[in-house]
Amino acid sequence: MTQTVQNPKIRHALSVTRDADFAQWFQQVVSEAEMAEESGVRGCMVIKPWGYGIWERIQKIMDAAIKEAGVDNCYFPLFIPLSYFAKEADHVDGFAKEMAVVTHHRLIADGKGGLVPDPEAKLEEPLIVRPTSETVIGAAMSRWVQSWRDLPLMVNQWANVVRWEMRTRMFLRTSEFLWQEGHTAHADRADAMVETLRALEMYRDFAENVLAMPVVAGEKPENERFPGAVATYSIEAMMQDGKALQAGTSHYLGTGFAEAAGIRYQSKEGQQELAHTTSWGTSTRMIGGVIMTHGDDDGLRVPPAIAPHQIIILPMLREDDGDEALLAYCEEIRRALLKHSALGEPVRVLLDKRAGKATQKRWGWVKKGAPIILEIGGRDAAGGMVSAVRRDRLWKEDGKVNFVAQTRDDFIAAAAAELESIQASLYAEATARRDANITRGLTTLDELATFFSDDKRYPGWVELNWSRPTGAALEKVVEQLKALKLTIRNTPLDAAPAEGLCPFTGEPAVERIYVARAY
Amino acid sequence: MTQTVQNPKIRHALSVTRDADFAQWFQQVVSEAEMAEESGVRGCMVIKPWGYGIWERIQKIMDAAIKEAGVDNCYFPLFIPLSYFAKEADHVDGFAKEMAVVTHHRLIADGKGGLVPDPEAKLEEPLIVRPTSETVIGAAMSRWVQSWRDLPLMVNQWANVVRWEMRTRMFLRTSEFLWQEGHTAHADRADAMVETLRALEMYRDFAENVLAMPVVAGEKPENERFPGAVATYSIEAMMQDGKALQAGTSHYLGTGFAEAAGIRYQSKEGQQELAHTTSWGTSTRMIGGVIMTHGDDDGLRVPPAIAPHQIIILPMLREDDGDEALLAYCEEIRRALLKHSALGEPVRVLLDKRAGKATQKRWGWVKKGAPIILEIGGRDAAGGMVSAVRRDRLWKEDGKVNFVAQTRDDFIAAAAAELESIQASLYAEATARRDANITRGLTTLDELATFFSDDKRYPGWVELNWSRPTGAALEKVVEQLKALKLTIRNTPLDAAPAEGLCPFTGEPAVERIYVARAY
Repeated sequence: MTQTVQNPKIRHALSVTRDADFAQWFQQVVSEAEMAEESGVRGCMVIKPWGYGIWERIQKIMDAAIKEAGVDNCYFPLFIPLSYFAKEADHVDGFAKEMAVVTHHRLIADGKGGLVPDPEAKLEEPLIVRPTSETVIGAAMSRWVQSWRDLPLMVNQWANVVRWEMRTRMFLRTSEFLWQEGHTAHADRADAMVETLRALEMYRDFAENVLAMPVVAGEKPENERFPGAVATYSIEAMMQDGKALQAGTSHYLGTGFAEAAGIRYQSKEGQQELAHTTSWGTSTRMIGGVIMTHGDDDGLRVPPAIAPHQIIILPMLREDDGDEALLAYCEEIRRALLKHSALGEPVRVLLDKRAGKATQKRWGWVKKGAPIILEIGGRDAAGGMVSAVRRDRLWKEDGKVNFVAQTRDDFIAAAAAELESIQASLYAEATARRDANITRGLTTLDELATFFSDDKRYPGWVELNWSRPTGAALEKVVEQLKALKLTIRNTPLDAAPAEGLCPFTGEPAVERIYVARAY
Repeated sequence: MTQTVQNPKIRHALSVTRDADFAQWFQQVVSEAEMAEESGVRGCMVIKPWGYGIWERIQKIMDAAIKEAGVDNCYFPLFIPLSYFAKEADHVDGFAKEMAVVTHHRLIADGKGGLVPDPEAKLEEPLIVRPTSETVIGAAMSRWVQSWRDLPLMVNQWANVVRWEMRTRMFLRTSEFLWQEGHTAHADRADAMVETLRALEMYRDFAENVLAMPVVAGEKPENERFPGAVATYSIEAMMQDGKALQAGTSHYLGTGFAEAAGIRYQSKEGQQELAHTTSWGTSTRMIGGVIMTHGDDDGLRVPPAIAPHQIIILPMLREDDGDEALLAYCEEIRRALLKHSALGEPVRVLLDKRAGKATQKRWGWVKKGAPIILEIGGRDAAGGMVSAVRRDRLWKEDGKVNFVAQTRDDFIAAAAAELESIQASLYAEATARRDANITRGLTTLDELATFFSDDKRYPGWVELNWSRPTGAALEKVVEQLKALKLTIRNTPLDAAPAEGLCPFTGEPAVERIYVARAY
């Protein structure tokens, strides 16, 4: 990946640049944009108002898409009895061993001024804090599905889940995270596959058109399948350090989960049949993807579609008699903006009246990534003017902030179009970067090794021919890649037909895969 | 409480009436309206689409009121370290001993085909699944508050919480429940009290104008305060069995929680001061209140403001050639209705095309309590007609369902007004019942005992004079009431000044209280 060209005249808002230390930079954005912070509880974060506001926007838009598809929201228990996992050894072997286990239901004083779990209140059967809800939702579906008339059964829940993680990173890998999990049951494989791919397409569309984050939608290789799934699909996004981020998954689970949970239906012909199930999910991890896709050396840049506030009005208050007229002027602008719609919704405007220096507040909003910031002083108010800066065009060549003076009316008339332009521009920038950092044409493992051992810090992704080996042959490839710190991301659904040989097996390629370092 | 007058010609949809067995009736409404069901996990319920849809409506409207007040949504961890509770012995003594305790973070195979918590993965410090988040939010506030400029700090979270309950009842008392908890920090007592009462008023307004559930907003007696609170306020609603349901609370916490958590700020004068904090919450329990306020012997009646679907269109499909035209007619009506607004939002309409008999589907929607049900047959479609029934006027005197035939255009033109009329009518009915079941004028404990030992099954509430005893004197009253299975609900904020003597202490009354059986 090409390094960012630095203009020495610009003094960026962050003290760490992406080029200097991408991981540090990420932490600094999370902190300086007031997205989240450590909670004092291992692996769990506090999501602060700006971060949570972005999550609320994500929820609102994704939820509408989920409902539009005829999926009903429900809520299932936080706790899952241990025995549900024991039933599904496959499931547990795959990922779910590291889980929070509840063993007691009471605390008592230890006689030394402290508290301990009460030995008298030990649970007969430990409860697991849900790492995902296939088992408990499967049990509900077995009660709800009787006949073919009950199918498809499509439910979703917005919930917190817990997977005990040894190394955590805010938004990307936390022990507790927020997500939505869709679970559906169908009469046959064809219906279930349609739903699996519908959910994948919903995620692709959401990532690209809402998060402004280009993704590759495709099928994961066998070794990366959700344990017990027949097929797993993902959307993969390229971060600015060239690594891949899996930003959503959709699984076709065949009849295995239905068999374990007893989801059977009477067919039109009167036969008892097993349902075919799917599951699909996205999480707060997407916010990590947004940061690493759109952030720059001045902090976050939030795509307008998910910005809690799209336009910030900053009055340059002087704590004198002029403030009242200035605030009235700003309030008029706010009201006028509220009548406009951008990206299909009324414009979201904040008049920031907090005490404090306007420049300090400005830099706060720059780091948070509010799409448009207006600064308005007493003279602007008197002259019917405003000064506006687009967060995606923050700097002038001379190192000054790119505020553009304009009449209030011109600004208001153009504001919605500007927001839509920012959304499009962030997407175009990310897409161009992604496309520029996919390498094609490597034909041997050696070439691959050389490519990734190159001194390029951010090598991006490599597209390779693939013969789709399975079993031991696939394992061997996975090991070879692991030695290079690489993983297979997915087989893109929309790739051109493969030609030539697979660099791993030497056999004729049947499809293409992306290989990359990944989060 | 007066018993419901039964019309022998009516065959109600439920097999248990409110009069016959209120508790059984409640369970039947929850089940037949498909609100929720047992999950197989002790004390935890599955909230089904209709129940969750009502919760989503509650969330949407309450959340707007919370944001309108300038409160920011955040998310705090599910787990709280044990030591946080040990710090606050008061807190724990009060209610928080029965809590889910996480002691391990891994499962391993037990060698016998099962799974057990891995002894190697025992947590150094157990984690508690949050029963409420005062401690962990207090810790965050201590980091966020530095100066008077940071105050007021007002945050809210929508979350699941767990309080281990021995006896559970769906929606009313479950081990896991969903809620919102607001937490605020202020510079002084006056500001904090304003916020405490603002939240209380927000809840009163919400209960009455959204849930159509009349409530008494008032202060809880000292013995019913949230542990550690200086003052606790509640809204109390009367259920159809005359019992009280506490449907929301707001606490002024003084400086005690700030001291425990270290929430200090530098005042304008440069002094280090303790903040004054508040907290306030409402939960899925409100849905239990809605059921017991508005349900009848045919199931639930959902106030239109919180109905996931307000109008159900039921085509009488015959699985023949006529269905297409019928569905087209129904779809036209649906689209026409969507252009109307009721209670400030676009009308929510469902065209129920599912397979199955129309009458069976009708009774499903009656039991769910959809406000208006339209049945439309082929002849209606041909004649531009519809048949509509209001759920709150379900029966005719002759025992038939009160469908009213009318032209399509008349129905569409009046639909929004009908929905608003249903909302008002449910509120008026509940208010009249509540007011008719408050007894005043009892002046001695004997009279109270006689009143509540009366053979009336649903005695309602009693308003009494109150001298506001504290400490041991209050304890004595509480014990006397407990012997009658009674509790003090609250001191209404808007009561007329008290006159006369307190029946418990014989001292001059300073205020009034409500005494009742309660959930």
